[in-house]
Amino acid sequence: MMSDSNAQATPSIQICRIMRPDDANIVGNVHGGTILKMIEEAGCIIGTRHCNTQRGTCFSGSDVDNDRCLAALARVEHTDFLYPMFIGEVAHVSAEITYTSKHSVEVQVNVLSENIVTGAKKLTNKATLWYVPLSLQNVAKIIEVPPIEYSSPEREEAGKKRYEAQKLERLETKERNGEVITHVSLPEPYTVGFSQSSLIHLVCPSDCTLHGFVHGGVTMKLMDEVAGIVAARHCKTNIVTASVDAINFHRKIKKGCVITVSGRMTFTSNKSIEIEVFVDADPLVEAEKGKYRAATAFFTYISLDVDNKPLPVPPLKVEGEEEQKRFEEGKARYLQNKAKRLADKEQQQ
Amino acid sequence: MMSDSNAQATPSIQICRIMRPDDANIVGNVHGGTILKMIEEAGCIIGTRHCNTQRGTCFSGSDVDNDRCLAALARVEHTDFLYPMFIGEVAHVSAEITYTSKHSVEVQVNVLSENIVTGAKKLTNKATLWYVPLSLQNVAKIIEVPPIEYSSPEREEAGKKRYEAQKLERLETKERNGEVITHVSLPEPYTVGFSQSSLIHLVCPSDCTLHGFVHGGVTMKLMDEVAGIVAARHCKTNIVTASVDAINFHRKIKKGCVITVSGRMTFTSNKSIEIEVFVDADPLVEAEKGKYRAATAFFTYISLDVDNKPLPVPPLKVEGEEEQKRFEEGKARYLQNKAKRLADKEQQQ
Amino acid sequence: MMSDSNAQATPSIQICRIMRPDDANIVGNVHGGTILKMIEEAGCIIGTRHCNTQRGTCFSGSDVDNDRCLAALARVEHTDFLYPMFIGEVAHVSAEITYTSKHSVEVQVNVLSENIVTGAKKLTNKATLWYVPLSLQNVAKIIEVPPIEYSSPEREEAGKKRYEAQKLERLETKERNGEVITHVSLPEPYTVGFSQSSLIHLVCPSDCTLHGFVHGGVTMKLMDEVAGIVAARHCKTNIVTASVDAINFHRKIKKGCVITVSGRMTFTSNKSIEIEVFVDADPLVEAEKGKYRAATAFFTYISLDVDNKPLPVPPLKVEGEEEQKRFEEGKARYLQNKAKRLADKEQQQ
Repeated sequence: MMSDSNAQATPSIQICRIMRPDDANIVGNVHGGTILKMIEEAGCIIGTRHCNTQRGTCFSGSDVDNDRCLAALARVEHTDFLYPMFIGEVAHVSAEITYTSKHSVEVQVNVLSENIVTGAKKLTNKATLWYVPLSLQNVAKIIEVPPIEYSSPEREEAGKKRYEAQKLERLETKERNGEVITHVSLPEPYTVGFSQSSLIHLVCPSDCTLHGFVHGGVTMKLMDEVAGIVAARHCKTNIVTASVDAINFHRKIKKGCVITVSGRMTFTSNKSIEIEVFVDADPLVEAEKGKYRAATAFFTYISLDVDNKPLPVPPLKVEGEEEQKRFEEGKARYLQNKAKRLADKEQQQ
Repeated sequence: MMSDSNAQATPSIQICRIMRPDDANIVGNVHGGTILKMIEEAGCIIGTRHCNTQRGTCFSGSDVDNDRCLAALARVEHTDFLYPMFIGEVAHVSAEITYTSKHSVEVQVNVLSENIVTGAKKLTNKATLWYVPLSLQNVAKIIEVPPIEYSSPEREEAGKKRYEAQKLERLETKERNGEVITHVSLPEPYTVGFSQSSLIHLVCPSDCTLHGFVHGGVTMKLMDEVAGIVAARHCKTNIVTASVDAINFHRKIKKGCVITVSGRMTFTSNKSIEIEVFVDADPLVEAEKGKYRAATAFFTYISLDVDNKPLPVPPLKVEGEEEQKRFEEGKARYLQNKAKRLADKEQQQ
Repeated sequence: MMSDSNAQATPSIQICRIMRPDDANIVGNVHGGTILKMIEEAGCIIGTRHCNTQRGTCFSGSDVDNDRCLAALARVEHTDFLYPMFIGEVAHVSAEITYTSKHSVEVQVNVLSENIVTGAKKLTNKATLWYVPLSLQNVAKIIEVPPIEYSSPEREEAGKKRYEAQKLERLETKERNGEVITHVSLPEPYTVGFSQSSLIHLVCPSDCTLHGFVHGGVTMKLMDEVAGIVAARHCKTNIVTASVDAINFHRKIKKGCVITVSGRMTFTSNKSIEIEVFVDADPLVEAEKGKYRAATAFFTYISLDVDNKPLPVPPLKVEGEEEQKRFEEGKARYLQNKAKRLADKEQQQ
């Protein structure tokens, strides 16, 4: 790092960080995703830095003005995870630019794990990433990449081959993109099915108490997150939580579970929408225990304009008896809460 | 805070924190879930602290040994969000124990928002939480709660009424819990449908570049998270990422989008499983743009025993032509990667 | 990083990371606490790595068995923040071991900010940290430190002087620890009571080392957060950390504790304000151990206008003898630091 005083040759960078409990699963193996994220951060730094070095003499492009850019990830080549990494180890990520085409940058990244207690070091990953520099002024514009100098003509030739190969493959995979996992028929806007959402969350150590059970507050935050997405999908405006109905936490959720939080609309008044949220816990490894319902609640959202004044919300399109029943129940809760608020106000006066 | 020097009377605590960009939505309104999480943290601290104060003389319970406990959230009463809170404001959460039954603690929490620049303060929430102290040695055991002293007999009486009311309501809601959002028939173990998973993630500021687009590394981390859940659901063991196939990032994902990441199994060899992952972006507010596929990839996982040696994995039960076709394609990729690894090894020797 | 193949001389490490929105305040200035946390992470890595290298021949200590250790932060010397850092910039933290006594390690750390878009680089911090290696098997045991080799006898001599000086100062400050911050009912603006603040944090797993003790960097980040709130309440403008006085870490904080961090103003000069910060640890569950003071420090803040130029700050309204005494002490520190800065500058010229 900062060792790029000779930036002309092969610019490089190194990142390192101690692996923490939240970076790993419950037996202490660092998630592949944690490593991929670090790899990409190193690539982004070195790619952006390089594409903004406009070295007068050795690089005279006609369309090279003072436009600054950020390197955006376009492709990651096949990456193997050679050894597992553990909590407490230091991940060293070193990145180097190994090829530049007119509009793209190839970055090669090595990851080493170091056990700072025993001193053991292992190469855990080798990755290749392709970046494209996008203008900061106009993100649709791709900037020209300053060329690097190669230590030998063979290196440049090999880089060019890799460039051509990945270009071909990118075209081929474009076709796969139409596919969708669940071939459900798209529900109509403003129906319950349209905005219905669910998220899954793998419980991590920081979500848990000393007992190894999820904090109630973490569960509520996830419930609000799903309910907020449901509300935004329905209203397509800035929405905020207006109230939460009483929530009972029937069963505890243990470390190592996957939490599924699902939300669906139940009711709309003129200026509010009610969303029912379910929390289910799935003890992944102790699967014999089976999934169970851990909590349920009703969240009420309102939609705000730019001055934070409530906006009217689109009415819910109710389909079938079940939904109609839930709508009526929601209406009853709405009226009850309204009456209670009024009574509270009078009492205060 | 720290004003609980006279802890005998009504123990209290105060928490405060500056609201950060990741606590809020894109227009700067703090998520209700952020506030609920802070409320619960305050309740958990004061509840746990209180239940571990066993004051010799004034509290002589027979089963009061030296068993330590943590307060677990059992219920949150209906909570209104009176005003929106904004990034840069300080949230002040103050919690006070207002009632204790033999086995539960009622905590009342007030939240104030303070604009530290203008000095403006607003009461934004009043919440009531119920905690139950669980033994640290045996989490199934509920500890006896030391009684608090009330400033008046009326206060104690009112608390008792609240206690009875919530107890009744908790019993009633138990019945609701059987319900599930989608009444699909449960798929058979080891099929594609059984382990198939998807998560949604609301893009937050820290996920983004200066352009306001999601870092590729953030997307890859989410992809690995879903693939890991799929793998764990199938294997029910400790699984780790073994490799990731080339990933192409076709389209950028903008701030304010909801990302849906879905994974399904495609192939199993003796000791590895392959999972296909799809990333879809949904520009919530600019809904006219519609959802789009942002990336796809194949992740390979292996299952490890306690010595980090690979374990055999249960074979995938393939159903229908589509799944069979994908299985064959997965096998081809598997054999190709294996051949490539062998070739690389030979080259190095 | 990894460049320490010749670890015999002066072992070094480098860490870097892109600054994200959550690392900064609302106008985009990176929090001093974010930088202190990175500095400490670098120090912890290099200190731990060094103390576990027991190089047979050149180091034959009698009590050197195969006991592994972690380096625990004991003290941070006075640290100046020379320039503000911004979101999107890359922070480069490089650490080097510069002195070893029998039981402690001195680490010197430099922080550079790099704007990867414009290429501008600035030295933003120079810090000195002292670590003590604690046995992994018995955390109460301090391990013997392998000596480093010095490039010259003068360097060793200078290090020894720094070691003796900090040792003396640590003894002196032990006395300050009894004091507690007390609440005032509705204080007047610009008084100590008006801006006084405190926050509470429940220690989570990712805050901790493998020992289960809170990283010094996590504590410093919380200290800076509270001090920042105090400063903003007083100034009502954009404030940034200008310096931190030497911090001694008297006692370790264990997993499961609640940390209370309190800050109060002690002194204002024309363009700076000084805030005293206390860190108290409360072992929630093991309540019989009681609360204890874990660290104290003085933070200095300045107020910046939109062009990042220092603004005058409102003078502190001092009330009572105690506050007057603390103000005088603050003034003495201010003048001493000013004199030291001038002397350093002259020396460099």
